[in-house]
Amino acid sequence: MDDLTKLLAIEEIKQVKARYFRTMDTKDWDGYAEVFAPDAVMDMRSEGSRDGVARDEMVTTGNRAIAEFVKAAIDTVTTVHHGHMPEVTFTSDMTADVIWAMEDKLRWPEGSPISTLHGYGHYHETYRLVDGAWKIQTLRLTRLRIDAV
Amino acid sequence: MDDLTKLLAIEEIKQVKARYFRTMDTKDWDGYAEVFAPDAVMDMRSEGSRDGVARDEMVTTGNRAIAEFVKAAIDTVTTVHHGHMPEVTFTSDMTADVIWAMEDKLRWPEGSPISTLHGYGHYHETYRLVDGAWKIQTLRLTRLRIDAV
Amino acid sequence: MDDLTKLLAIEEIKQVKARYFRTMDTKDWDGYAEVFAPDAVMDMRSEGSRDGVARDEMVTTGNRAIAEFVKAAIDTVTTVHHGHMPEVTFTSDMTADVIWAMEDKLRWPEGSPISTLHGYGHYHETYRLVDGAWKIQTLRLTRLRIDAV
Repeated sequence: MDDLTKLLAIEEIKQVKARYFRTMDTKDWDGYAEVFAPDAVMDMRSEGSRDGVARDEMVTTGNRAIAEFVKAAIDTVTTVHHGHMPEVTFTSDMTADVIWAMEDKLRWPEGSPISTLHGYGHYHETYRLVDGAWKIQTLRLTRLRIDAV
Repeated sequence: MDDLTKLLAIEEIKQVKARYFRTMDTKDWDGYAEVFAPDAVMDMRSEGSRDGVARDEMVTTGNRAIAEFVKAAIDTVTTVHHGHMPEVTFTSDMTADVIWAMEDKLRWPEGSPISTLHGYGHYHETYRLVDGAWKIQTLRLTRLRIDAV
Repeated sequence: MDDLTKLLAIEEIKQVKARYFRTMDTKDWDGYAEVFAPDAVMDMRSEGSRDGVARDEMVTTGNRAIAEFVKAAIDTVTTVHHGHMPEVTFTSDMTADVIWAMEDKLRWPEGSPISTLHGYGHYHETYRLVDGAWKIQTLRLTRLRIDAV
């Protein structure tokens, strides 16, 4: 990749991740599915288990399945997810490793077993050029800190 | 626009918005007025009404009037405004649509009717090239969540 | 510098600062030292004094000494540092001024004299091209607000 192609790819990757956050927080699940490659893998084992979902099952494959998985977790939850300070490293003309700092703040409806969660960590991602557009290929979350009430 | 011009414009737009935030939080109201086009329009109806300002009057036109409007609201308030994850779409060689994620945290002086506000949302903006410099032409805020005390 | 060189330098500076934050919060002190020029100067007088360190001694010179200074302050503290909205101004082909908005959130181990700190402010930095890589040359912090418990 020449320098200009690289800069364009970095900016496109940033905007893909911006759509990831905005579609998640505004509950636009079709738009959310679009930011992932068709065979994307999301690894959320850092989040532990969930009602009826064991820790080992917190890995989801396929962009539609990922959107369903996340929708089932937070469609009724007021969420704010912010990403910061991407570190982009190209591993080929069509693939990149990216690390993002992140913060999330969730508030469940009244009467839920959990009330609020406020967390911080890093996304460790790979991106791939799919039919001319950069998409998230894999996503794994690590945590610096979680405060739950 | 060619690719390089586009990337330069995106970076300039990011720095304009950085000055928007920094001048607001450091109360540099002349610098704040400079980030807007002379005929810019700020729509703050998402924030409801304000002492003596009805909800329908929360739309302000003109960069100087916008700076006066915001100064009147927060000059004595300790404010922190952060912006994240811009999505820039050019609509012509001289205009762009931009969405920003945002968080704001305000603390009023002791004795004020409101004590603190902590909010999250998105700026929906347009920018315009005015005499060779990108400026904010319109700004509208939508909210994900507001916590006020 | 031509436009493309400038854009590449801005992106590299952003990624240097991303490593500054990530290595600090994951306590990778060797990686942290690498983001600074060998003769870098960090001015933390905004933070006041510290056990056994007077306010006037809160200025540290040298990338290894800076890493030791910060390690001594926060190696056992759970920290989250985020940076936002850089304003980059080149002052020569090899030097740049950069302002970043920032937020930090620290939680000390139980039994410490201080429990938590949550702050906001701006980094005022200079960067320098050292052997072909951009590094932080000077760093000074100013504060909008600090909440300590």
